[in-house]
Amino acid sequence: MPFSILFVLGGARSGKSRYALGRAEASGLSPVFIATAQAFDAEMEERIARHKAERGPAWTSLEAPLALAETIANHAAPDRVLVVDCLTLWATNLMLGEHDSEAAFGALALALRAASGPVILVSNEVGMGIVPDNALARAFRDLAGRLNQKVAAIADEVQFVAAGLPLRMK
Amino acid sequence: MPFSILFVLGGARSGKSRYALGRAEASGLSPVFIATAQAFDAEMEERIARHKAERGPAWTSLEAPLALAETIANHAAPDRVLVVDCLTLWATNLMLGEHDSEAAFGALALALRAASGPVILVSNEVGMGIVPDNALARAFRDLAGRLNQKVAAIADEVQFVAAGLPLRMK
Amino acid sequence: MPFSILFVLGGARSGKSRYALGRAEASGLSPVFIATAQAFDAEMEERIARHKAERGPAWTSLEAPLALAETIANHAAPDRVLVVDCLTLWATNLMLGEHDSEAAFGALALALRAASGPVILVSNEVGMGIVPDNALARAFRDLAGRLNQKVAAIADEVQFVAAGLPLRMK
Repeated sequence: MPFSILFVLGGARSGKSRYALGRAEASGLSPVFIATAQAFDAEMEERIARHKAERGPAWTSLEAPLALAETIANHAAPDRVLVVDCLTLWATNLMLGEHDSEAAFGALALALRAASGPVILVSNEVGMGIVPDNALARAFRDLAGRLNQKVAAIADEVQFVAAGLPLRMK
Repeated sequence: MPFSILFVLGGARSGKSRYALGRAEASGLSPVFIATAQAFDAEMEERIARHKAERGPAWTSLEAPLALAETIANHAAPDRVLVVDCLTLWATNLMLGEHDSEAAFGALALALRAASGPVILVSNEVGMGIVPDNALARAFRDLAGRLNQKVAAIADEVQFVAAGLPLRMK
Repeated sequence: MPFSILFVLGGARSGKSRYALGRAEASGLSPVFIATAQAFDAEMEERIARHKAERGPAWTSLEAPLALAETIANHAAPDRVLVVDCLTLWATNLMLGEHDSEAAFGALALALRAASGPVILVSNEVGMGIVPDNALARAFRDLAGRLNQKVAAIADEVQFVAAGLPLRMK
């Protein structure tokens, strides 16, 4: 593998997930998709099922709306590549559930450093617009930005994706 | 020409239009400006007239708030360079007019592939802020992101502009 | 010094300030911090004091919520490096105080060109989200974008920071 931890950062609808999936498939390892999305309703269930079908039969799918560190620790392996999509949604789940995000970020960092196989993490850049009006959005923006910095520092490869094109930052 | 299709992506007030105009003028070809803005009122008319005056007498100006594919097909030529400014506004016009955006994107792609002369397209990056509160803004963000990916995939040169400076992505 | 004017542009919580501080400390010159933030209340005072303590005893701290050009002119010196953090807040102060921003931008440009020592300026990219609903936010976005272009044009080095990582644009 050319990387151990690959961090893919991009805006909404930037093509970052597709890029991450492509990198996983190009690795030749068994691809495992770790979704942080939760199916709250039928529409969301349908959307998750559709994405699963699009990924094809080679993929194994797991869900980790909160227990991301544990899921990485339990499933990383030299013959597998994990794709976490996406960190921003995981941070949202932590915040809405009033979990200790610092502790969770620390556990994620430990799991990434200890992972016995490659991991690709997808995240949103959310800090390049106007300062949001409401305090919750500002707090979330801070949280997501700190998480992105933390993961980028651990990663050995970082790609910034815009309009479907990657730009290597590390 | 060093390019057939040049895609210029940037934030609001990033200097992307000025960069596109400069590239067109440096080409030595006859520059044609294709505005997607519509003059709804006197203020907008005045603004469009001012921009036209700023571009100078070498430029031909056309308007294509909706019929962009046709305008490109009809005006591209080996001795001309077309500048489309901007795609984001065109996507807005499609959405507000309730046109079939998929069909329009497909027609644009065909027109670009078939163009008999170089085309420069300017677009906004709108997906790097916090998720918008209202559903229309979210739908627009998705639409604009998909359009940017589609045009970037066709382009042979892509420049990301921030603070007036270009960064080559393709 | 490898630079005279270094411009550091990034989103909220992108790590841009930390990057700027690191570059100043690596220069071997006496570092001077020029804050554009104003302490309106006890919370803000506490925050400013905490940041000051984090920077350590090598740093001199100045405040320039409005008189930025004068502060740069008075304090730049060959044995010092100035860090202005941040331009976006300075533009906010100009706008809220209804000052003549064009005149202020011009004075800043003059001060930077005439500075007798290196200056690092930190600023926010705020134009890559959805068009804001309210007119003041749109006007501010335009103002901040024009300021970023102006300073980037003067700078001899420009770094775009995302997730704590710099990408050289100039």
